[in-house]
This record gives sequence, structure tokens and C-alpha cells, in this order.
Amino acid sequence: MSAEKPTTACKVVTASRIAKKYTEEIKAHIAKLDHPLTLVGLLANADPAAKLYANWTGKTAKQLGFNYRLIEIPQKDQLEEEIYQVNNDESVDGIIVYFPVFGNRQDQYLQQCVAIDKDVEGLNFKYISNMYHNVRYMDDGETKKSILPCTPLAVIKIMEYLGVYNELLDYGDRLYGKTVTVVNRSEIVGRPLAALLANDGARVYSADINDIQIYERGVGLRLRQHQVKECNLTLEQCAKSSDIIITGVPSKDYKFPTQYIKRGAVLINFSSEKNFDDEAVRKVASMYVPMIGKVTISMLLRNLLRLRENRLA
Amino acid sequence: MSAEKPTTACKVVTASRIAKKYTEEIKAHIAKLDHPLTLVGLLANADPAAKLYANWTGKTAKQLGFNYRLIEIPQKDQLEEEIYQVNNDESVDGIIVYFPVFGNRQDQYLQQCVAIDKDVEGLNFKYISNMYHNVRYMDDGETKKSILPCTPLAVIKIMEYLGVYNELLDYGDRLYGKTVTVVNRSEIVGRPLAALLANDGARVYSADINDIQIYERGVGLRLRQHQVKECNLTLEQCAKSSDIIITGVPSKDYKFPTQYIKRGAVLINFSSEKNFDDEAVRKVASMYVPMIGKVTISMLLRNLLRLRENRLA
Repeated sequence: MSAEKPTTACKVVTASRIAKKYTEEIKAHIAKLDHPLTLVGLLANADPAAKLYANWTGKTAKQLGFNYRLIEIPQKDQLEEEIYQVNNDESVDGIIVYFPVFGNRQDQYLQQCVAIDKDVEGLNFKYISNMYHNVRYMDDGETKKSILPCTPLAVIKIMEYLGVYNELLDYGDRLYGKTVTVVNRSEIVGRPLAALLANDGARVYSADINDIQIYERGVGLRLRQHQVKECNLTLEQCAKSSDIIITGVPSKDYKFPTQYIKRGAVLINFSSEKNFDDEAVRKVASMYVPMIGKVTISMLLRNLLRLRENRLA
Repeated sequence: MSAEKPTTACKVVTASRIAKKYTEEIKAHIAKLDHPLTLVGLLANADPAAKLYANWTGKTAKQLGFNYRLIEIPQKDQLEEEIYQVNNDESVDGIIVYFPVFGNRQDQYLQQCVAIDKDVEGLNFKYISNMYHNVRYMDDGETKKSILPCTPLAVIKIMEYLGVYNELLDYGDRLYGKTVTVVNRSEIVGRPLAALLANDGARVYSADINDIQIYERGVGLRLRQHQVKECNLTLEQCAKSSDIIITGVPSKDYKFPTQYIKRGAVLINFSSEKNFDDEAVRKVASMYVPMIGKVTISMLLRNLLRLRENRLA
């Protein structure tokens, strides 16, 4: 074997390939409905990139057989009233608000204004709190499933697709023995993701700009959930012991150091920026998912179907 | 009259004087209870200033006849579990969490973990949303009052005390014709305060570091609430037409420019820093409340009594 050749046969797996499984399921599910479901997007943001994303959501939703309506709100201050309008509109089954709008805590307030039974993104406080506490249903009778936030859910589904989740193990143990580094600890993706992975049995190093924390499944009796510990390792030490490295740094300038990556590691980037050096990482990683957007949108539409089932339950 | 004398006879009104009315009411109310109510403070913050504030809350609560228990949590990551513990503890009537803990959005998540029927600070999303929409009860039967956030409520009560609210006018019109400038638009105080004042009939200039917005009572049929408009005036123009100026800038270096203040204006500072030049403003203002902390804590204890009434209702 020549020294010139890459040392691993890294597979680059695209989001559209992974999403296909879910889009097929969604289509099959929709075919059985008596009328199409309606998703409404609310855009109160002059950013052309946000509009592009909004249109792209709409295109995918329509292709799969949903109705999609984009409402553009020229004045940010009208957004709250629009949210309440669509909350109360019986023809609307799901709502997505394109953030940032104000770019501060008012955005979190507005997110919570979305009716819980139309929140396809799974960002209502109740859903997030259920997720952290590993509570999977909304009711004691276990008829209504709690909704998981789209992007963390997409990462989980990608890991299932890649075979990182071991289906021979019991549910909740399927990442047992696996070590994961997650670079991002936002409230929307990084922290919920670390908790979900820990709840499934992984040891998770959650890194942000300030520090690294360890998330592991809790052993406490009081809450069936992950626990968090301080970590004294460097990012290099964490990464070198990690089977999976997941990045989500929203910066063009950030690159995860390729030399920290363990040979054969699985890499997933959920940032819209490229957090890995595409060429270099192929020589080290075993599998690499450079972008996840299409899986995220499938999860959003899957949540829309689930919300309808909850309503019927 | 000598030119040396101040041009107005400004009254400096202390928070303790204003709070007295409410503390007397609270004591009278407590005397009628069959057992004392218990407030729990959760402190997961090594900041000595936070501990000082926690102890001071405790001292006031005990003086008035409440039980107060401070729980110190050495590891921030245990705070969420502690919140759920006290949520479920039937001997606890009210909970206050001393923020900041993580200093990011995780703090907002944690605030929402506090049980709504023990949230003395009035920061549960449901309370905030009711406040913005001018909804005063939790139920259609109007038996349970919605809780207002402590600090904005304290400012309102101060304005009532100072006679800025005109009690001859109908409820909801008592600030009709008044113009108010609020320098701070945080989600915790500035924005809710602007909305409350607008709901009571005032024209409010809400200023933050980025821009100035106008809050006025809405005329829309869809929601009985304030509306927000863009404002093209400078802070100087706004202030010079304002009967009341309220500041809350959390910085030692910030001083509101005295030359912007209209002769005879009422000044209230809710920042823990002195946002007005104490000496200079006395020559212009008619009334000046330099700090409001003691009124805020009365409102917190008043909310605690109200939560109990809601439970009995």
C-alpha cells in the first residue's frame, strides 16, 4: 500500500441520502390522511438568507404533500399578534417561526408564544423540559408523545443511520460504551443534544468557548435523567478518546483541529458553516456528515405528523 | 429669591417610605393566616453580592412573619434538580432563584422550571404573556389573579404612591395623557414595564442601546394590549417631553444627562447603580426615587400571599 493513499476509506454521507428514509416514511403516512396538513412559516426578518431557508422549507414541505404558507411580517412588532392568529386558526396544523427576529431574549419569549400543539420545532418549554428529564409522553396514559427539538433529533437519527446506535442493545442503552464530543452548548441544539446522548448511555464531552462539561446518564433516584460533571481534560484529550465528534460552531473562521481526531472517528457537522477541513478529515475519519439541514427538515415534518396524532389521541 | 437656591423643591422619596404601606398590608394579611407561609431562596452562585441580596430578602421576609429558607447549591448543575425538589415540597409556598447562574439562556430555562404556583417573581411565561396581553386572571371565572413580575410592579406601585397615576380616572386610563421615558428594554423589567404603562394609557418611549420604540395602548380589536411603533426622535427629544423618566442601566459609568430632564419631571431609578446625578437632578425634578429594592421585595412577598389565595380559590 502506498503512503500516498488515505489511511482510511472514509465515507462521506450526505444529509439527503439519510433524509430519504424519513421522507419516504412521511410520504407514506401522508397518503393515508383524509386531508393534507398545513404548515405555516412566519418570517419577520429582512435577512435574505432567512427568506431562502423559509422558501426551502416550503419547497420540501410541498414536495412531500403538505400545504405550506409563508407569512411575511414587515414589522417585527406585529409578529406576536400573528403568532396568536395562527395559534387560533383551526386550518393551521404546525407553525415555524424563523429566528433571529430581535436577536435577544425577546426571541425566546416569542418562541414560547407558539401554541404547544402546533410547535413543530419542539422548542416549547414543556417539550424541552421533558427531554431533559427523559419523559417521553405528555400524559400519564402514554397516548401523546412529547416532541423532540428538530436539530438534536436530526443528529440522533443520523447516528442511528450510521450504525453508531447499536440496535442489539436495549432502548436507552444503545450508546453504552460510546464517547462523544459535542462542540457547541447552545440551548437550542448543543445542550439538549448532549443530554439526549447521555440519556442513551453515552459519555459526552460538551465543549463551548468557556469550558468542557461531562454529560452522563444519571444514577440518581430522584430524576431519570443525565447528570453533568466538571471536566478537567483539554479538548484535544476529549476528542482523542471520542468515537464521535459533533460540531456546531456558527463561524466561518472556526475549524475543528484535524490532528485531534481519533482514527476511525465518526464526524457530524450541524453548523451551517463548514467546521471540519473537508479534505483533511477524510484521511482520519471513518464516516463524515458535512451538513445536516435536510435531515432537520424531515424531523420538522415528522413532528408535524406526530402533533396531529397527539391531537387525535 | 436667590439664584443660588434650587429652582424646584424636589422631594427625594425613599423606597423604604413607599414600601411601608405594603409591608403594613402584608403584616395585617399574615396575621390572619392559620400558619406562616414559607419562601425558599435557591442560591447557586458564588457571587458575594448575590448572597448579600439573598440574606437581605430572607431578613425582610422573616421580619414580616414569613418562614424563609436559603438553600445554597455548590454545584450549578444541581440547581435544576433542587428546583424540582422544592416544586414538589408541599411545605414550600414560594420560590425565588437568584440569577445569574450560568449567565446565558440556560438561566431562562431554569427560571421556567419553577412551578407556576410558587413563582413569586412572576416570571413564568404564562404570567409574562398574560401581562403583555392585559389578561388579569388565570381562569375564565376570574377567581385566580395572574402574577405580575416584581420589579415592573414595584415601579407601578411607586408611581401610584407618587400620585402619577390619577385615581379619578378609570382603571386602565390612569396614565392617560402622561409621557414616560424608560431607559432599559430588558425582558425582565424594561419591556414589561413599558407594556404595563402603555396598557394604563401612557405614551412610553422605550430606549435601549440600539434604538427607541414607542409603546402605546393598542386600538386593535384582536388583542387588548399595547402596540409598539418605531420612533425617530432622539433620547433628548423624548426625555424633554416626558413627565416621568425611569432608568435601569446596570452600569456604574452610565448617567442620564441631567440637561435632558424637563423641569418638574418625576425620576425613578431601578438600576442597582445610580443612573442619575443625585445632586444635579434635584435642581430640575419634582420627585426623585433613587433606588427601589425595598419596594420590589414587598411586591415579591405580596405575590407570595396572592399565590396562596390562588391556591385556595
